[in-house]
Amino acid sequence: MGKELESKQLAVSRHTLNRLRLGVDLTGGDLAPDAILEAALSCLKPQELVVFAPEGFKVKVSGVEVVYAKETIQMDESPLLAVRRKKNSPLSLGMQVLKQKKIDAFLSAGNTGALVATASLRLKRIGPPSLAVLLPKENGSMVVLDVGANISFKPEHLVAYATQGILYKKALGCPKPRVALLNIGIEEQKGTKQIQEGFNLLVAHFKGHTEATFLGNVEAREVFSLDVDVLLTDGFTGNIFLKTCEGVSTFLMQYLKKKNLSKPLMQTMHSQFNYSEHPGAILLGVDGLVIKCHGYSDQTAWCSALEGAKKLVKANLMTKLRKAST
Amino acid sequence: MGKELESKQLAVSRHTLNRLRLGVDLTGGDLAPDAILEAALSCLKPQELVVFAPEGFKVKVSGVEVVYAKETIQMDESPLLAVRRKKNSPLSLGMQVLKQKKIDAFLSAGNTGALVATASLRLKRIGPPSLAVLLPKENGSMVVLDVGANISFKPEHLVAYATQGILYKKALGCPKPRVALLNIGIEEQKGTKQIQEGFNLLVAHFKGHTEATFLGNVEAREVFSLDVDVLLTDGFTGNIFLKTCEGVSTFLMQYLKKKNLSKPLMQTMHSQFNYSEHPGAILLGVDGLVIKCHGYSDQTAWCSALEGAKKLVKANLMTKLRKAST
Repeated sequence: MGKELESKQLAVSRHTLNRLRLGVDLTGGDLAPDAILEAALSCLKPQELVVFAPEGFKVKVSGVEVVYAKETIQMDESPLLAVRRKKNSPLSLGMQVLKQKKIDAFLSAGNTGALVATASLRLKRIGPPSLAVLLPKENGSMVVLDVGANISFKPEHLVAYATQGILYKKALGCPKPRVALLNIGIEEQKGTKQIQEGFNLLVAHFKGHTEATFLGNVEAREVFSLDVDVLLTDGFTGNIFLKTCEGVSTFLMQYLKKKNLSKPLMQTMHSQFNYSEHPGAILLGVDGLVIKCHGYSDQTAWCSALEGAKKLVKANLMTKLRKAST
Repeated sequence: MGKELESKQLAVSRHTLNRLRLGVDLTGGDLAPDAILEAALSCLKPQELVVFAPEGFKVKVSGVEVVYAKETIQMDESPLLAVRRKKNSPLSLGMQVLKQKKIDAFLSAGNTGALVATASLRLKRIGPPSLAVLLPKENGSMVVLDVGANISFKPEHLVAYATQGILYKKALGCPKPRVALLNIGIEEQKGTKQIQEGFNLLVAHFKGHTEATFLGNVEAREVFSLDVDVLLTDGFTGNIFLKTCEGVSTFLMQYLKKKNLSKPLMQTMHSQFNYSEHPGAILLGVDGLVIKCHGYSDQTAWCSALEGAKKLVKANLMTKLRKAST
């Protein structure tokens, strides 16, 4: 049996020196609660574990400390309301135990907004909150941040994200991280005003910086092939970026599953994501059919663009657009 | 020989009734100029083609009309300067010919910014400019707009994009398009203030709308599996979204090329894009190591998250972050 503790007292035992201890929220995510505990016990010793569990949940392994939460937060709950009202949620209790340094880290698969809000409220702030993830690149991984902690973005946050990301990447063993700003082009005047301002702040920040290198702007298309260690972005864009990676990856895998993985098929699949082939980017809002093809369009892509243009002309798209605008 | 025309006169012959004619910029993109012309001639009759070519370029096929441009625009040129200064660029001439209705569409693989700026200047505006692309979905394709025509985004543009996108999709044969707004969550209060405001305008716009269905917010992760016909987004986000699709697709293809395409490998590849495995999203900016795992984390993902947490604790990440913030 795990030691059952009253959540209000938070009587979690102190850290033994040199023993690492992780707090795990058993109430969030698809595996909650049993399979999360099982997973945790498969890679940690019971003594290394403090779990935050729903009331009545029985831990059948001795040595695991249990903190019972009287309230839980649902995935669809408003994060701010949840945080204010539910002081005995696993998140809230987890942050308190973390603050008391009785655990070294807290892990949860629950409501992201509530997690960010609770952490921001219960822990001391040491910078703008940001969520950082690792994504693959050719030779390892890159840190991407912010992927959604902070939607009220200010340009100066990028400098703080740079510091956070560099330290994260260094903690993973990268001696001199290469930092880049996610943007829609590589020139310095690219992007929204906020991103442009952020770019300038980053340039100033990295002047004489010896711990890391600033590569400047990078496009989402190049980000996986360039050797970027830390990718900076605002929370809204970063969230879209991250979820697009996941969505595309899932889509491609499902496509491959259904097919026989022959080389031409993969080529087809790949080309589906290169817009010039279907039929290019149509410029709307002007009174004329204007199509932007990829700079690297090959002949197939050009033909596809031309065929696409034909189709749109025949469908009288412009007439309809013109009409809709009046 | 193509009929060589003085660019200033723009003496492109008038449309013959019922003959479709497309204008093609031969000066932009990797294939410029010969291979673009070759591609065009492989799918169009010479009479269906008006090309915008650099001075001195010889068209060896009869029947193709040629407009010679005295100036060209480079890929790295400032779009606004290029448009103002270069009135004899292929883009500028192309728009003029399009405006005169001597061609039905104009296609270019050149500088996107210059294309948008030139079209906006030379053609009548019939709405906010937007760039629309087609991306794959399970059963066909979806229109995504704006992917970068307009970086100075206003919420009301989304309503115009909806109209544009619906008409585009209808022109492709979709009877009643399903429209969605790209956002970081499906709840109506999600996203930036501008996106929230846009969402409300869209809800009002689609009330009683019979030509299309508004599905509300959609996440980038779900966008390929949901049956979305028109995906609305602002130009900055849309550009990041599009290029991420391309980048991920390229990255995955290169990965597959190097490996033997076995099923476990594909699984590994796929899981690389699901952040919970490396080791989860780290919440930075608060004084405590907080890790957000995916709601759908499986046991492997949880173990990876826990191992990742261990690594960060051992690397004293928090201490370094705290120090950096003072």
